[in-house]
Amino acid sequence: MSYQQVSRVLKENKTFGIISHVQPDGDSIGSMFALARALISMGKEVEVYTRDPVPLKYCFLIPEGLQVKDVKSVAPAEILIVLDCSDFSRTGLSSEAWECFSRVVNLDHHVTNVYFGHLNLVEGEASATGEILFRLLSREGFPLNVDIAESLYVAIITDTGSFKYENTSSRTHRVTADLIEYGVDYAGISQRIFDEHPLPYMLLLSRTLSTLELYRQKIACLTINEEMRLQCGAFMEDLDGIVNYAKNIEGVEIGILIYINGNGEMKVGLRSKEADVSKLAEKFQGGGHHRAAGFRINGDYAEAKEKIIKASLEFIGG
Amino acid sequence: MSYQQVSRVLKENKTFGIISHVQPDGDSIGSMFALARALISMGKEVEVYTRDPVPLKYCFLIPEGLQVKDVKSVAPAEILIVLDCSDFSRTGLSSEAWECFSRVVNLDHHVTNVYFGHLNLVEGEASATGEILFRLLSREGFPLNVDIAESLYVAIITDTGSFKYENTSSRTHRVTADLIEYGVDYAGISQRIFDEHPLPYMLLLSRTLSTLELYRQKIACLTINEEMRLQCGAFMEDLDGIVNYAKNIEGVEIGILIYINGNGEMKVGLRSKEADVSKLAEKFQGGGHHRAAGFRINGDYAEAKEKIIKASLEFIGG
Repeated sequence: MSYQQVSRVLKENKTFGIISHVQPDGDSIGSMFALARALISMGKEVEVYTRDPVPLKYCFLIPEGLQVKDVKSVAPAEILIVLDCSDFSRTGLSSEAWECFSRVVNLDHHVTNVYFGHLNLVEGEASATGEILFRLLSREGFPLNVDIAESLYVAIITDTGSFKYENTSSRTHRVTADLIEYGVDYAGISQRIFDEHPLPYMLLLSRTLSTLELYRQKIACLTINEEMRLQCGAFMEDLDGIVNYAKNIEGVEIGILIYINGNGEMKVGLRSKEADVSKLAEKFQGGGHHRAAGFRINGDYAEAKEKIIKASLEFIGG
Repeated sequence: MSYQQVSRVLKENKTFGIISHVQPDGDSIGSMFALARALISMGKEVEVYTRDPVPLKYCFLIPEGLQVKDVKSVAPAEILIVLDCSDFSRTGLSSEAWECFSRVVNLDHHVTNVYFGHLNLVEGEASATGEILFRLLSREGFPLNVDIAESLYVAIITDTGSFKYENTSSRTHRVTADLIEYGVDYAGISQRIFDEHPLPYMLLLSRTLSTLELYRQKIACLTINEEMRLQCGAFMEDLDGIVNYAKNIEGVEIGILIYINGNGEMKVGLRSKEADVSKLAEKFQGGGHHRAAGFRINGDYAEAKEKIIKASLEFIGG
């Protein structure tokens, strides 16, 4: 699918739905609002849908006057644009919702994309859906301004960890060079997205780091229980990223975070520098990616931890 | 001073000394070794000098077979190239050392540079000295390879906080796009430089976060004493960056880290989101930059802290 074909569909139609995946991340949010802004400024009618709420730290990207709607209240339109989803189920839309649209455009950067759309613009080598979107908008003469550029900037930096992950390419940097020339407040946005944390997060981080346990200098384990979390006033989303403190210790190969919820169930996050922890998670009926995976386990904490540590040590020893 | 003029000096001479500033950072180290590698591969004789040791995390950039020498053992050469220094005293060289060289080339990106060299290539808008150096080497046809590119990549990412600081420009991203095409292992390097920390750092971070105090939700204060540091096995350099945890709390305007050394002296670090803390530091006979400053203070910890907090609250209230 060429940029021109997608461009034509966007220009020739009048009514649009835009959606990304459940539990939206920076690339989802940034891409949705960038495209919504561009289409709105061309006089199109645009609705943006999400199953889960826009995370607080991305709310500054919501265009003024636009109300983000729930997936359950989909209204008919000519075109549905699905962003950053490898398959349609990732949207959280029912399959009947599909019928509300004449055509579905699938715009994504996941190599696992199943080409579910009537039109599919999929570039597996792009760092983020926002990177593809910028090329589409700029090459095909769509409106671009500082607000659109800031949304796309957020899309790119969140999916690349501010250009630190392997999915970054020289093209990512060139797109970003063009983007920030629209006047993007990249320093302020980066501070807000990467550095700032609510006080409850910091309190929880402090308590969690004090639980650090090291096994043969290779496995680092942190534990949080629900009581600690509630005492700090922290949300579940505040747990995100804390497991990296375990992984990031020099010499450590696998970092583990065990979260014990109130019902005797444990949620275990695994992060690695090199090892394929999705394979380790599979031993516990979990899954994930090469360097980030997880699973759930029930029972006694001490017994479960022993089992997890033993499996982890065997895994890296093998 | 044009690139061509500096290029000619580099090409027409045979013996070089290269130096950067005391307490070298990633830009110093990356720039020195990038230039050293380029000149060595052209058959030049090159000595690299530092007053302080190369920090452990940058040691992987030292060219094989090159011995980094102390500033006290400067040997005569035709050209001394001073990198990333706003004035000559920043090198840590004695003023007599100046006489060992026929000409001094001053290559820097600090707007405060005093043009102390015989030749001065100063670009205040460059994010890093490494950014200027890449343009010089690539435009003037110097050898470039993956090792040189990795050194320059380190120079740029450390001075821009991986493209997050205000000194980043679209030119920085374009230079980086060209750089990484030489095969830079940007993901591995970023992990090593930004994310990985020795165990003693993590232990010290854990202990330090438990000292967090908040004043009117605007001032956050952390304290480390020498005993804590030694118990964790941490070096003084492990303190770097911990003050940011105080500053990075949502709503906090100034983060403070008080380090109490063994002699009843306190070293105070200040970081701000917006406020000009160099002005606050001046009240205590200290100094620094707009968002990062510090000072030393003697006496009783509780009294000193009260004084510092009071001054900080007045400072942001005014």
